[in-house]
Amino acid sequence: MKPGPRNLITDVPGLLVGNAQDPALRSGVTVLTAARPFTAAVHVMGGAPGTRETDLLAPDKLVAEVDALVLSGGSAFGLDAASGVADALRKAGRGFAVGDIRVPIVPGAILFDLLNGGAKDWDENPYPALGRRALAAAAPEFAIGTAGAGYGAMTGTLKGGLGSASAVLGNGLTVGALVAVNALGSATVGDGPEFWAAPWEMAGEFGGRGAATTFPTDEPKPMKRTGEATTIAIVATDAALTTAQAQRMAVAAHDGMARALVPSHTPLDGDLVFAAATGGRALTDPVADSFALGHAAACCLARAIARAVHAARPIPGDLQPCWRTRFDPVDGQTTRNVFP
Amino acid sequence: MKPGPRNLITDVPGLLVGNAQDPALRSGVTVLTAARPFTAAVHVMGGAPGTRETDLLAPDKLVAEVDALVLSGGSAFGLDAASGVADALRKAGRGFAVGDIRVPIVPGAILFDLLNGGAKDWDENPYPALGRRALAAAAPEFAIGTAGAGYGAMTGTLKGGLGSASAVLGNGLTVGALVAVNALGSATVGDGPEFWAAPWEMAGEFGGRGAATTFPTDEPKPMKRTGEATTIAIVATDAALTTAQAQRMAVAAHDGMARALVPSHTPLDGDLVFAAATGGRALTDPVADSFALGHAAACCLARAIARAVHAARPIPGDLQPCWRTRFDPVDGQTTRNVFP
Repeated sequence: MKPGPRNLITDVPGLLVGNAQDPALRSGVTVLTAARPFTAAVHVMGGAPGTRETDLLAPDKLVAEVDALVLSGGSAFGLDAASGVADALRKAGRGFAVGDIRVPIVPGAILFDLLNGGAKDWDENPYPALGRRALAAAAPEFAIGTAGAGYGAMTGTLKGGLGSASAVLGNGLTVGALVAVNALGSATVGDGPEFWAAPWEMAGEFGGRGAATTFPTDEPKPMKRTGEATTIAIVATDAALTTAQAQRMAVAAHDGMARALVPSHTPLDGDLVFAAATGGRALTDPVADSFALGHAAACCLARAIARAVHAARPIPGDLQPCWRTRFDPVDGQTTRNVFP
Repeated sequence: MKPGPRNLITDVPGLLVGNAQDPALRSGVTVLTAARPFTAAVHVMGGAPGTRETDLLAPDKLVAEVDALVLSGGSAFGLDAASGVADALRKAGRGFAVGDIRVPIVPGAILFDLLNGGAKDWDENPYPALGRRALAAAAPEFAIGTAGAGYGAMTGTLKGGLGSASAVLGNGLTVGALVAVNALGSATVGDGPEFWAAPWEMAGEFGGRGAATTFPTDEPKPMKRTGEATTIAIVATDAALTTAQAQRMAVAAHDGMARALVPSHTPLDGDLVFAAATGGRALTDPVADSFALGHAAACCLARAIARAVHAARPIPGDLQPCWRTRFDPVDGQTTRNVFP
């Protein structure tokens, strides 16, 4: 298992990701899409989820493919990002065919960033436009850190952000993860720079600081108020999966969240994982390949979470320090100079 | 957060645990019960579960309390352990009242230990009797390691077993975990003695070796055949919880499994967690207490998993080495002398 060439979820051939963000709003949207519809599933484990079109992702439901998946800030208001994406996809002639009508299928999930210091006094919901902009920006390359749905994200300690990572498996399959990290918990161990995800780090992708050797013994406290949290993710593969197989990959991927964030899956987080399968490659051994995909998805998600926090950059009005500012003096100095 | 006086799930006042095992069968049963019925819930995340009476544990279902929870070896045959427990509870006048009839409510789950070298050629299913024996043995003290439902358990690398741990929280609540570890994955890191659960270890409860600093980079392979695995657990508290609150604790506890076993929640494991609440103590802050209980349950389960593998002892016919035999020479020597 090694990272793909971009170390992004877009190493899964065909997938495109677009970000849009509004600095005054301190929030944004990230869209995952592809030229063709793809299989998708979801597994929700947090106690405070905010979702749209997730019921249709159950394996017994009629629609088996989606046109895009949307991660958004904005709490329940951010669900409208998917409306903007759906409108734009409709104009492009995309969607599930019902007679001569096409209905774009755009499941989405949100995180809570309404108390992060941004200007939330809008008259018109800004998320449909952010969704359209994010879709228009969809490309194989995209920014991580303070970008898209992770633009205004915070964790229990350091700034959160948008993260991504990928892996090419021994069986030839590619797996990737995309995540907006706004957890109540922490991605780093105690007050140090080491990430909980350190055992899974590849090629120094989040600083190469290694694993912590001492660990906090005190009980974590909720550092934000009720509903202020949530980590939302997508894991993807080029394997040909049924919706049920994709759902199993989503379940397994939650282990990566558990390993990279402490605590995770709290009553105050709406933690969930979508799974996407583009279907380019048939499984050669459904059981062994499903085993490998689940583990790889968990690894990629853990790495993507650490990369999100590692890549976050300071912007004016921040309520929390960035990992880089605190633990990487040279780079921290640079960014402080740009944004005093 | 510190361990309770026994560092067992029975530190939750009122809970009793009994083990029964059959050396020739290389299998056994563990029963959790109490003098009074208690609230219970479950969350299943593995791909190959074997369960009984778990549907009634959903928060919307009529029956809100159970008389016992049963963990058993024996794959689907082991579900009959709960029959033996229910029969014995019926004779004791226990159970959900329907008119003048009482129906004991005994949810259970099994792990697969049918290919562990034991004598599986029985004419009569041995699990009802093992269930009755385990119930009769229920007490505040019980053995961990090679005992009860973990008697014949194996992991991907070392012998599995039965584990338990407890924690007393700052809010005064007690949390405990009980687990039979038969995972496809491994509880230790690579070929070393360090446990994945090391960050959560308290008071050297599983050897005090600290955390690993180097980590395997190769992809794990299924070390057993399809269906040969499964880690089944119970987390418990003396808090007064609704079934829905108990279910949330079960969900959060799965993080402990993800942190203590790699990989976890595979398509070949029937990994699940029951939650039990004896209701002795009212919550003072439902949100903050639920947050604390979930994190404590995850910590206790991770510790209990490591303690299961750490406490396993060699018996004749073992197909796998014990952690102690391999990594604790003095103790390993002793046990090798006893069982050459």
